[in-house]
Amino acid sequence: MNSNPIFSVHIPTKILFGCGELKKLATEKLPGKKALIVISGGTAMKKYGYLDKVIGLLKENNVTSIVFDKILPNPIKSHVMEAATVCRENQCDFVVGLGGGSSIDSAKSIAVMACNEGDYWDYINGGTGKGRPVTKALPVIAIPTTAGTGTEADPWTVITNEERQEKIGFGNELTFPVLSIVDPELMVSIPPHLTAYQGFDAFFHAAEGFIANCATPISDLYALEAIRLLYKYLPVAVKDGKDLKARAKVAWASTLAGLVEATSSCTSEHSLEHAMSAYYPELPHGAGLIAISENYFETFRNDSMKRYMKMAEIMTQQKSNRPSDFIDALVRMQKECDVYGLKLSIWGLKEEDFPKMVQNARETMGGLFLFDPRPMTDEEVLNIYKKSYR
Amino acid sequence: MNSNPIFSVHIPTKILFGCGELKKLATEKLPGKKALIVISGGTAMKKYGYLDKVIGLLKENNVTSIVFDKILPNPIKSHVMEAATVCRENQCDFVVGLGGGSSIDSAKSIAVMACNEGDYWDYINGGTGKGRPVTKALPVIAIPTTAGTGTEADPWTVITNEERQEKIGFGNELTFPVLSIVDPELMVSIPPHLTAYQGFDAFFHAAEGFIANCATPISDLYALEAIRLLYKYLPVAVKDGKDLKARAKVAWASTLAGLVEATSSCTSEHSLEHAMSAYYPELPHGAGLIAISENYFETFRNDSMKRYMKMAEIMTQQKSNRPSDFIDALVRMQKECDVYGLKLSIWGLKEEDFPKMVQNARETMGGLFLFDPRPMTDEEVLNIYKKSYR
Repeated sequence: MNSNPIFSVHIPTKILFGCGELKKLATEKLPGKKALIVISGGTAMKKYGYLDKVIGLLKENNVTSIVFDKILPNPIKSHVMEAATVCRENQCDFVVGLGGGSSIDSAKSIAVMACNEGDYWDYINGGTGKGRPVTKALPVIAIPTTAGTGTEADPWTVITNEERQEKIGFGNELTFPVLSIVDPELMVSIPPHLTAYQGFDAFFHAAEGFIANCATPISDLYALEAIRLLYKYLPVAVKDGKDLKARAKVAWASTLAGLVEATSSCTSEHSLEHAMSAYYPELPHGAGLIAISENYFETFRNDSMKRYMKMAEIMTQQKSNRPSDFIDALVRMQKECDVYGLKLSIWGLKEEDFPKMVQNARETMGGLFLFDPRPMTDEEVLNIYKKSYR
Repeated sequence: MNSNPIFSVHIPTKILFGCGELKKLATEKLPGKKALIVISGGTAMKKYGYLDKVIGLLKENNVTSIVFDKILPNPIKSHVMEAATVCRENQCDFVVGLGGGSSIDSAKSIAVMACNEGDYWDYINGGTGKGRPVTKALPVIAIPTTAGTGTEADPWTVITNEERQEKIGFGNELTFPVLSIVDPELMVSIPPHLTAYQGFDAFFHAAEGFIANCATPISDLYALEAIRLLYKYLPVAVKDGKDLKARAKVAWASTLAGLVEATSSCTSEHSLEHAMSAYYPELPHGAGLIAISENYFETFRNDSMKRYMKMAEIMTQQKSNRPSDFIDALVRMQKECDVYGLKLSIWGLKEEDFPKMVQNARETMGGLFLFDPRPMTDEEVLNIYKKSYR
């Protein structure tokens, strides 16, 4: 139950949080005079006026900007490389990630490749990555318009090598955003099912970080508060997306869960999901996590009993005396968010792909398995996929 | 009860925490090749071998060092100025504060004056300070050997202008330590009464930061955890200073309370105490706080009822339905730490000085009064002193 008594904390990011705080982009000290703004290939950032707003606020702050608008929901390496070239050719001083995790993660990776030679995969650890050291990167500003990834508060960026079906996380002290503006008003237009997918991504960052064997006293603090807030407010935000109080609580919980990722770690639930969406890029990350979550957490029910009960208690605000109270609460929360019973077959995954997904999870994100409460066998991993199939 | 929904978080300090972690000084990347080590004028740092250890670890890391060893328990401006000259003359790249808050605070102020012209008081806001802007400072490394000030996790430094009886806090983003190593093993030799004084300083950082009207969701998280840990473990550390588990919990609580100071603020209890020790420098800061605490918190009992009850609940782990439960728990904790009933008369304070102390508190640290749950009248401040007299 005890978390590690020896640990370090280092979160250099300045986080501005609150409704309307986007306006501070016009007055904060920014790391240069020219920005590359990175957004998704979808229409939301333009339709809701967020892009124009950001361009205008930067202009007020004497910053000119250009826009890269091709990022996919599961962002790919070739876009990182393309945008890094744009960034270099236009001599941008910093990169602004505006949107969901895909855009902000891409901004981080673009900021790295704007300063480093060769291919992005040269610098990746895991899979076929070459693990070259990264010693510089442009500064990144993160402006999330979703509440889920927590990337605004951690150094991580997850990019898919689309030629090799490898979806791998990367990050170091240089890829923390220098500034993150978390403005819940930018999140009101997210539809209910995506609110739920994203919110559960945040929930699992916190829950995995809490059962991880590298949990620390400070990550525990962040994790339990994120879990408490999401259990209470995510169903509210899913039911009424205009409820700004619920949006703000969920947004803050997501940022807290990002702090968990910066001070503890995800566990192999994330490896399993990355392998899934490496092969099925149309599968939303949060939906993939939800689909395997009950079986994943069932696997460690007797290995982390006190921590499961602690999570149950913070969720239900009632004394727990059995670890499965946590799984019951998780199921209840998924039902309240209308996402219970998502199965892998719905997304077109094929059972025959499971063995290579097991292998992919081990090869590309094997590191996270080391943080599980105990080592899992390949058969156990395979069983999680199988039980989550239909 | 609700904390501010709009807030910012920015703690650039890298904190290494844990028993034995001092050794990392030999392997961490340091901000230069020559260090000024700042320690107190007392004997502890030499007697316990901490100074030699730090010099040796720096040497392993290819850093040479010189030592300034004059800092007083209530550190004074003339020492800051003298050490800044030493620092400049020896072209030190960074400043190491080793010891209690007095040494680390001094290190911060020395780091400022090593890079800025004129007198330290030219840069101070409050009292007769001139409030000139500070745009540069040498990097600071903090190595606390006491658990109380939290200065290792915040930008603040409190220095007394001994000619003007002004004890004023100062700080900005430049005065956050770049690296803080919190090693509870360095704290085992602190005698019981100082352990209690220092631990209550941390407790009041947390409790004041929790009732402050600028409290935020993240400062609340840090504050309640610090309060919980101190209530449980400070009496243990006071009774048995060799209990490393209790020392570590108290040390972590003190760092958490420093994070409270970096994300919320102290309230006027600290202004009142600064005025006391500005006139009576032999009064330990923590003892001064303890002496006025019951009357200070009594003053706001009906202004911050829910927050008092929340603190009582986290301390006693029992439901509270009256705000005075907090004051009862505070008194109980002081009794368990053998510091209940400290009165100002014990330290030689004179009743006739109280009116000028009221004025001094307003003039030098008036800003903190703005964070009280409601404005206090001068008469109320005077009454706190009077009731705490004997």
